[in-house]
Amino acid sequence: MNLLDEMLGRIRPIDTTVRAQAWDYLDNLTKPVGSLGRLEELAAQLCAISGRVPPPPMARKAVIVVAGDHGVTAEGVSAYPSAVTLQMVHNFLQGGAAINVLARQAGARVVVVDMGVAADLPAHPDLLDRKVRRGTANFAVEPAMTTAEAHACVEAGIVVLEEAVAQGLDIVATGDMGIGNTTAASAIVAAMTGEAVSEVTGRGTGLGERGVGLKVAVIERALRLHRPDPKQPLDVLAKVGGCEIGGLAGVMLGAAAHRLPVVLDGFIAGAAALLAVGLSPLVRDYCIPAHESAEPGHKAVLRFLEFKPLLNLNMRLGEGTGAVLGMTLVDAASRLMREMATFDSARVSRASETPREL
Amino acid sequence: MNLLDEMLGRIRPIDTTVRAQAWDYLDNLTKPVGSLGRLEELAAQLCAISGRVPPPPMARKAVIVVAGDHGVTAEGVSAYPSAVTLQMVHNFLQGGAAINVLARQAGARVVVVDMGVAADLPAHPDLLDRKVRRGTANFAVEPAMTTAEAHACVEAGIVVLEEAVAQGLDIVATGDMGIGNTTAASAIVAAMTGEAVSEVTGRGTGLGERGVGLKVAVIERALRLHRPDPKQPLDVLAKVGGCEIGGLAGVMLGAAAHRLPVVLDGFIAGAAALLAVGLSPLVRDYCIPAHESAEPGHKAVLRFLEFKPLLNLNMRLGEGTGAVLGMTLVDAASRLMREMATFDSARVSRASETPREL
Repeated sequence: MNLLDEMLGRIRPIDTTVRAQAWDYLDNLTKPVGSLGRLEELAAQLCAISGRVPPPPMARKAVIVVAGDHGVTAEGVSAYPSAVTLQMVHNFLQGGAAINVLARQAGARVVVVDMGVAADLPAHPDLLDRKVRRGTANFAVEPAMTTAEAHACVEAGIVVLEEAVAQGLDIVATGDMGIGNTTAASAIVAAMTGEAVSEVTGRGTGLGERGVGLKVAVIERALRLHRPDPKQPLDVLAKVGGCEIGGLAGVMLGAAAHRLPVVLDGFIAGAAALLAVGLSPLVRDYCIPAHESAEPGHKAVLRFLEFKPLLNLNMRLGEGTGAVLGMTLVDAASRLMREMATFDSARVSRASETPREL
Repeated sequence: MNLLDEMLGRIRPIDTTVRAQAWDYLDNLTKPVGSLGRLEELAAQLCAISGRVPPPPMARKAVIVVAGDHGVTAEGVSAYPSAVTLQMVHNFLQGGAAINVLARQAGARVVVVDMGVAADLPAHPDLLDRKVRRGTANFAVEPAMTTAEAHACVEAGIVVLEEAVAQGLDIVATGDMGIGNTTAASAIVAAMTGEAVSEVTGRGTGLGERGVGLKVAVIERALRLHRPDPKQPLDVLAKVGGCEIGGLAGVMLGAAAHRLPVVLDGFIAGAAALLAVGLSPLVRDYCIPAHESAEPGHKAVLRFLEFKPLLNLNMRLGEGTGAVLGMTLVDAASRLMREMATFDSARVSRASETPREL
């Protein structure tokens, strides 16, 4: 059995019995019932994922940032040249990118993965070489990659996740780098959800109105040419995807198989989540959508997967920046459940059982 | 000159020249222009507050939690008994409340202040005794306090802020504890904004529908009885306010006078902000509204002050819990500006100046 099938076989539903126990536990903490809002929902989800009340500490954090290039940039769909993917990988390794700053603050290690950069990267102690191919083909004229390569990307993501688990991992966040990858993500989202391309395509790193029009036309042409099958996520990934998107789908599958919460960044992570959930619907409940991206196609993802993001800060950077901010909120939820006093232990009176005139 | 007038005289507008310089600086960091969304707005605000680009580190954090009791609880407007204010102050001092957990995570010290608890609190090294009176009077039948006491509350808040500054402070968050204080806050918000009482009154810690109806009637009666003057915030505070709300207004005034960002918690902080901004409109730009509370009256505050909160997590606990979560985002904004590489330093290509067909 191959690694992907093995992972799919290992994924179990989250534990709804434990989730119900978590709510009882939360109601005994020194606060009005439900007054911590979304943090209580997160705490209950962490319990259901781990099978424990209270949930384990979220001490060992990692953000896995997967990089890949996109042949479709030849069509002029990005405001930045392709070389920026490589340059930003160097920036990650030097610690100067936004994700490095936010990960330092959150106490998360940054795992940088080359899964499809269109250049040879010199070896670096902090760089994982998991290259499946040197950039995708231009999917406006041919499939982005073969089905075997798509499969290899997802499995490489699983391996990266399992290596992180071996080093100690309580929670993982997804990040991405790839000039052109909003074009691939829009194509995936249109294919998987059936939404119109024009509804799920945006400015990416900074296109103007004409640029967005071109991008829509390129994606529409590609979808007519390849007819990807939404029932077969690997077919969609091969025809209009990207190496880093496949890798992130693998990270999500691996996290679910290991019963770990996986915090999703924005639009690129959303496209990867559509593929991962397409491969195993049980993955959905292990995902925590961190933020709503300013990229318009993200709304379609959130609607389709019935995801309620934690943050809406009008961000559209990628790299895992939104995910790492969200991870701090997830950590907060775990800490509240583990560290707050109960009404009994703190000798605090409860609300009137039968309030007089309420 | 008294302390309040001295503070009001010291408050200067934030520096809009520096803010413009901050935006230029942000556009040189290795990210697409504007792609960090609200975090960039926060970073620019921190620059304008401090007068420095990049802004200072937000290393020394404090949340000032002011406690007070409310005579209006005699009308049955709260789901919890008044004794819970005192019990929760003990919980704060023992480190078991939600605010303790979140402050530990955020690296903020918790400053607990008794400004109006209706009981004698034993001395405790971590408790500041700034009691102005033992709980307010029942404002359904008489003014909550005298104008001199209202003045004393605001000044006590200023003193607490200045003591925190003396111990080292880069950013401050506001917290509150006081059974019955959503009733006082709703009365203040109605008086200061002119909104209908029924529009700004909610369930507080957990009233039912009948309880909310009673609460609305009590507030409407009090406003008819006292006719507080929205042009005189101390008159409003004296007639329908609370000691902790006045204290928090003082904290905000002090922060603005010391050119420090002040992160506001939810509804109670919002009522205090209406008073502080009423006393000095310049205070507004030093405030960072952390979250949108589930308490409905908070919307009126946000609209009136043109505040855009950072988070919406359906929280309604108070204590400064939302503010401390928001403080971590403010810290993130400062770190990004201070620690990110520039396009030149990281040798990353910029977006095409005149993109080909974009």
